[in-house]
Amino acid sequence: MSEPAKPTVRVAVLGPGIVGTQVVRLLLEHSEELAPRVGAPLELVGIYVRDATRERDAVIPRDLLTEDAAALIDRADVVVELMGGIEPARTLILSAFAAGKAVVTANKALIAAHGPELFEAADAAGADFYFEAAVAGAIPLVRPVRESLAGDHIQRILGIVNGTTNYVLDQMTQRGLGYDVALKEAQDLGYAEADPTADVEGFDAAAKAAILASLAFHQRVSLDDVFREGISAITADDVITARDNHQVVKLLAIAERSDAGVTVRVHPALVPDTHPLAGVHGAFNAVFIEAESAGGLMFYGQGAGGAPTASAVLGDIVSVARHRAVGGRGPRESNYAVNAVLPMDAAHTRYAVRMSVPDRPGVLARVAEVFASHGVGIESVRQIAGDGTAGLVIATHRAPESDLAATVAQLRSADAVHEVLSVLRIEGD
Amino acid sequence: MSEPAKPTVRVAVLGPGIVGTQVVRLLLEHSEELAPRVGAPLELVGIYVRDATRERDAVIPRDLLTEDAAALIDRADVVVELMGGIEPARTLILSAFAAGKAVVTANKALIAAHGPELFEAADAAGADFYFEAAVAGAIPLVRPVRESLAGDHIQRILGIVNGTTNYVLDQMTQRGLGYDVALKEAQDLGYAEADPTADVEGFDAAAKAAILASLAFHQRVSLDDVFREGISAITADDVITARDNHQVVKLLAIAERSDAGVTVRVHPALVPDTHPLAGVHGAFNAVFIEAESAGGLMFYGQGAGGAPTASAVLGDIVSVARHRAVGGRGPRESNYAVNAVLPMDAAHTRYAVRMSVPDRPGVLARVAEVFASHGVGIESVRQIAGDGTAGLVIATHRAPESDLAATVAQLRSADAVHEVLSVLRIEGD
Repeated sequence: MSEPAKPTVRVAVLGPGIVGTQVVRLLLEHSEELAPRVGAPLELVGIYVRDATRERDAVIPRDLLTEDAAALIDRADVVVELMGGIEPARTLILSAFAAGKAVVTANKALIAAHGPELFEAADAAGADFYFEAAVAGAIPLVRPVRESLAGDHIQRILGIVNGTTNYVLDQMTQRGLGYDVALKEAQDLGYAEADPTADVEGFDAAAKAAILASLAFHQRVSLDDVFREGISAITADDVITARDNHQVVKLLAIAERSDAGVTVRVHPALVPDTHPLAGVHGAFNAVFIEAESAGGLMFYGQGAGGAPTASAVLGDIVSVARHRAVGGRGPRESNYAVNAVLPMDAAHTRYAVRMSVPDRPGVLARVAEVFASHGVGIESVRQIAGDGTAGLVIATHRAPESDLAATVAQLRSADAVHEVLSVLRIEGD
Repeated sequence: MSEPAKPTVRVAVLGPGIVGTQVVRLLLEHSEELAPRVGAPLELVGIYVRDATRERDAVIPRDLLTEDAAALIDRADVVVELMGGIEPARTLILSAFAAGKAVVTANKALIAAHGPELFEAADAAGADFYFEAAVAGAIPLVRPVRESLAGDHIQRILGIVNGTTNYVLDQMTQRGLGYDVALKEAQDLGYAEADPTADVEGFDAAAKAAILASLAFHQRVSLDDVFREGISAITADDVITARDNHQVVKLLAIAERSDAGVTVRVHPALVPDTHPLAGVHGAFNAVFIEAESAGGLMFYGQGAGGAPTASAVLGDIVSVARHRAVGGRGPRESNYAVNAVLPMDAAHTRYAVRMSVPDRPGVLARVAEVFASHGVGIESVRQIAGDGTAGLVIATHRAPESDLAATVAQLRSADAVHEVLSVLRIEGD
């Protein structure tokens, strides 16, 4: 039995930038095979641009360009927002919802800043809001979290969600480079921006962490709730010490739920080299999910780039267009749970503290006493003898972040310690 | 705005085995939080068993047991088939479709054998048919392939889809064990059956390969179309030689599309140790997908087990129940493409041929001539000098399987070769 012929689903693209151009190309090239998947023909009815006279990629049909976004949204069923930034994207999406249109976006910054407002507007209008490409580019992640795991409980997410920092840390690990050299190389190769702050200081990862946490825990999480620490303080010594201990350094976005509430954080972490995240090389992204019944799951792929991101956007367009054609609606996001979002102090983590200490008897006992005085258990001690001083790496058991931080503060002023060289959290074991 | 109250969606479970028991537990324990995700309350209305008097897990409510499958299906909206095997599962699912019910199953053997018949029955009835748990247990794979990548072109799938064989090969790799010792250990630990044939000879992986290929390429693929070779001939020497060459041995399910058609195969393969699949240890599963726009994606998790499989089944139940409650339908599967399914001979692969040869001048030239006479290019040669004989590992360029097989047949009878010790295909580079 074939489905009866359905009216065309009209698609508007706002912003033909790098991703938008690829989306337009795929919509035009694949239109014939998309129709049976949608259950109706898809028609690209227009492309909103600020300046229609500007030169563009040859793939963009000039006769579809318009500078009138409101009129374009009016004659579309599905609005695909690929302009980026907060405004006018936010206002245009809200006006699309108000008119009952389905919206697909790849706009991470907008969802991290205004997610709840957008989710509520979509639900109030009974409209679909899909944003697979906003979290980890090409990696199908939103759909598995919202749908495949809908009958399970996600307990913890550990994600490598920034390709630039993973590239830099991977080069440091593979080739023993220092941070500055690795970053410079990443900039020369186009993996890092001239001003790398948004990537290396963890701002990009923090926005994705906020979105991931809100999806996983059905929870309002804003950027301000995310503890953030970048990779610019990571040294070649940190990476070498990690390797000697069968670990790798990764910048992780972490969201976890306990009885007390939810914590969300971004920071460099030591990961065992047998963990699937340790095998994520170059500029790739991966998200590891721990669920109550499913156990450990990992999703891996390209987190950025025009064509990969466009692939995720197209998947969303097919889903929402199918709902227009044959009925149905995607998951609702505005049914929030009421778990508390806790500050970083309340997180339970493990520390690896690397320090230089005087090479004399009794030092270890005095250092161990500092940990004990804060109730922090020691899991392992590695001592590297030196010339009058010694290197000491102490890995703790899991403990409240506040106790760990207090321990380190006291170590920094302790007579038995020359210097605290680095503090890295241990994850994934 | 909250959705108006909807009538209860009635769920029937057929077969409370290991997976079914976990599904019942999750349905009962999580019923309150599932309702908002579905858009209506879910009610477990009955559990079909062949013998209601048999003793069962305490989680199974005895008053829900029934020996009358037809009557149970009749009063359900969603039928969850977890009996396994072909009959009576096939007949019960077809009767459910005939009555317009949605069906969720984890039955890999049934879909591999009767997929097209079931897909057509579902589409004829306009009913949902979901089977996430049938391919790779807990790993969300069907939904990403059917939906997230709906606007992309999948070109190739490389999957580790059998936990038993991955456990055995991983132990051989990590600890240098021989095949028999590693298999015995896997049996003692419960990772392998007393009769391990279905796993180690690749039958289980072949069934999953057929399902994956049919999903990825919108194509009818039956078990008979799948070339199959198991791992029982893999030796400790193969694994050591691989490691010296920065490769690992994995049993892969491979489906790929070329202009000529589709090939589907299961066999041991050498994978570069930097490939994400190389980092899949123990009994874990992972599927690596190469798509035109998305690039490389990998999905990793537990491929078997009661609770993980139940997690995937629950996700499917929520999706199809949501369609009952708020409208809509999942993707249709019976729109088949008309690509040819090609025999193994037509596949393009790379071989690594390990042989012992006389340790004298001129041997390499004569061996190389055999490859050249079949038009097979040599990519690398590694020679390990011995005592009168030498080990030789030749890796080829990509070539038609038929030419590679003919090359090896001629090598086996060549004067310049003592013995062809092993032939392994190279994938993922």
